[in-house]
Amino acid sequence: MTLIERNMDQTSLPLVVVPNCVPSLSEPLLRCIDRFDGKARVQLYAQPKDVTDPAELVARCTGADAVIVLGFHVTDAMFEALQPSVRCFAFGGTGIANYVNVPLAKQRGVRICNVRHYGDQSVAEHAVALMFELAKRTGRMDAQMHKSGWPGFDAIQLGGRTLGIAGFGGIGKATARIARGIGMNVMEWSRSSHAAEAEAMGVTESPSLAHLFETCDIVSLHMTLSAQSEGIIGADLINKLRPGAMLINTARSQLVDSPALLARLQKGDISAGLDVFDAEPLPDDSPLRGLANAVITPHNAWRTDAASEGIVQQCVDSVLAWLDGKAVNVVV
Amino acid sequence: MTLIERNMDQTSLPLVVVPNCVPSLSEPLLRCIDRFDGKARVQLYAQPKDVTDPAELVARCTGADAVIVLGFHVTDAMFEALQPSVRCFAFGGTGIANYVNVPLAKQRGVRICNVRHYGDQSVAEHAVALMFELAKRTGRMDAQMHKSGWPGFDAIQLGGRTLGIAGFGGIGKATARIARGIGMNVMEWSRSSHAAEAEAMGVTESPSLAHLFETCDIVSLHMTLSAQSEGIIGADLINKLRPGAMLINTARSQLVDSPALLARLQKGDISAGLDVFDAEPLPDDSPLRGLANAVITPHNAWRTDAASEGIVQQCVDSVLAWLDGKAVNVVV
Repeated sequence: MTLIERNMDQTSLPLVVVPNCVPSLSEPLLRCIDRFDGKARVQLYAQPKDVTDPAELVARCTGADAVIVLGFHVTDAMFEALQPSVRCFAFGGTGIANYVNVPLAKQRGVRICNVRHYGDQSVAEHAVALMFELAKRTGRMDAQMHKSGWPGFDAIQLGGRTLGIAGFGGIGKATARIARGIGMNVMEWSRSSHAAEAEAMGVTESPSLAHLFETCDIVSLHMTLSAQSEGIIGADLINKLRPGAMLINTARSQLVDSPALLARLQKGDISAGLDVFDAEPLPDDSPLRGLANAVITPHNAWRTDAASEGIVQQCVDSVLAWLDGKAVNVVV
Repeated sequence: MTLIERNMDQTSLPLVVVPNCVPSLSEPLLRCIDRFDGKARVQLYAQPKDVTDPAELVARCTGADAVIVLGFHVTDAMFEALQPSVRCFAFGGTGIANYVNVPLAKQRGVRICNVRHYGDQSVAEHAVALMFELAKRTGRMDAQMHKSGWPGFDAIQLGGRTLGIAGFGGIGKATARIARGIGMNVMEWSRSSHAAEAEAMGVTESPSLAHLFETCDIVSLHMTLSAQSEGIIGADLINKLRPGAMLINTARSQLVDSPALLARLQKGDISAGLDVFDAEPLPDDSPLRGLANAVITPHNAWRTDAASEGIVQQCVDSVLAWLDGKAVNVVV
């Protein structure tokens, strides 16, 4: 662990603590740490791997006015231990209800901030990378080539095929833009209509989720997980996929009836590219690990240099706004 | 081997023989074999793997008027053995000077046809798939995940980065289109200027090949191999690549000073995605097989369903044109 301090001699300034910061985040944070000059003291704990011990994290945050939370949960006990000192928590993630008790923070008048759309492009690129790996097996040929031989593969061309995008928010649109550049036909379905925006992108709107699953060569999921969307991709939809179809999931596993997907994959007539799983890390005995027609990655879609830069910049933005009496990325 | 015959009872029709045809080509050929009805008899030898024995191939072609050549070379001895019967050879490839003695065919008045642009989209997609594998390591994470564990990777976002395209023909343009869809900045260099066309695609023209190598995050080669372009990517250019840069080659290995590229890769500060090699198949003792910063595939870029379809359709087009006194894809 390396403790990096900034402006600590200016004791009249409020204190911002970053109690846990891995290199992919500390590097961009250090590049912009001067944004706090004249506005706050900063203590940044940089280390190679995440620290998750609550007592250690609380000790590091003691006396802070604001905390930037990267890579750990704030339990109720931790939250209480830091009262009344810490009045602002800026989280480096989007769906933070699992990371902090938002109603409790609201009740105590503590500001909670998140980050938004920082990973849209990176996640869209990962969805497309999974499609390419399923269509071309570039990575699998490379793995074999690094051993021996000359292992060819009868690949599929993506250009000319039809991609169905389920969920047409920031990530879905970014995926559609890339797919259009590849020369794919793109169809989208979303809970609310985006017909005009879709048309401007050369994308058609599907009348139903069932139609999307019935007609597309590839379906990529880009919905947010909510009470309404949990389990929305049921056995009925999975079994509508054509033989040879591909399902891509870089969103959330809980959108999908996982046993039904596994059964269809075990039947062997579709393939899937999955970055998300019911249990993460994926258990070593998961049957997905044995399926040649599943390309699986460790919830890594969001994890790029550009997304890390976006997370860090938005956390700094929201803390500086709070210090300045303004509101950026405020949850409560 | 399966012999498929069509219209053989119409003995007054000319005979077209396809003496060697693997499944990826026999399947699309059988789907359109009725295009010969009323115009030619057809004998198609379908088999799981390429037959390359000259005596066997000559025996299969004896008495043919036209031969569709897929997956083998026509030596001078084979050519002579089939004279004066075979008056047209339609090759399922582009650069066919290595596959038949073109001046000899011209001297004997035998028509030689090739196929064109059939693989532009597929090769462009492979170049992009190699970029994604270098940036995201999707395939390598998948290979590890199929064993055990949860191996994350600090990936690179392609959107916002600059791609340099060396050679702005059909494949270079197809690659540029995909890269623009990803949100990359694209720069091209070609022996002749394509400024207007580039501008319409949102692509800038580089003043020199050296500038392309100096300034781009990724350089992808799409030049044809000729006396002028052989070795054009020398040590001087390779050493202009920035630390962290990627070089993609889906064109020809002979464009590149391979020892200089190997030396830079062994230094470890660039990475490369390579589908082509000085010797193919790549020898098992090639040092490229041991380099983690090289993603290598077995000259597979062109090999997709859509490209196979294009090859077959163009071969049939050119033979039917020859039978009809017309000219399609004529080399001599």
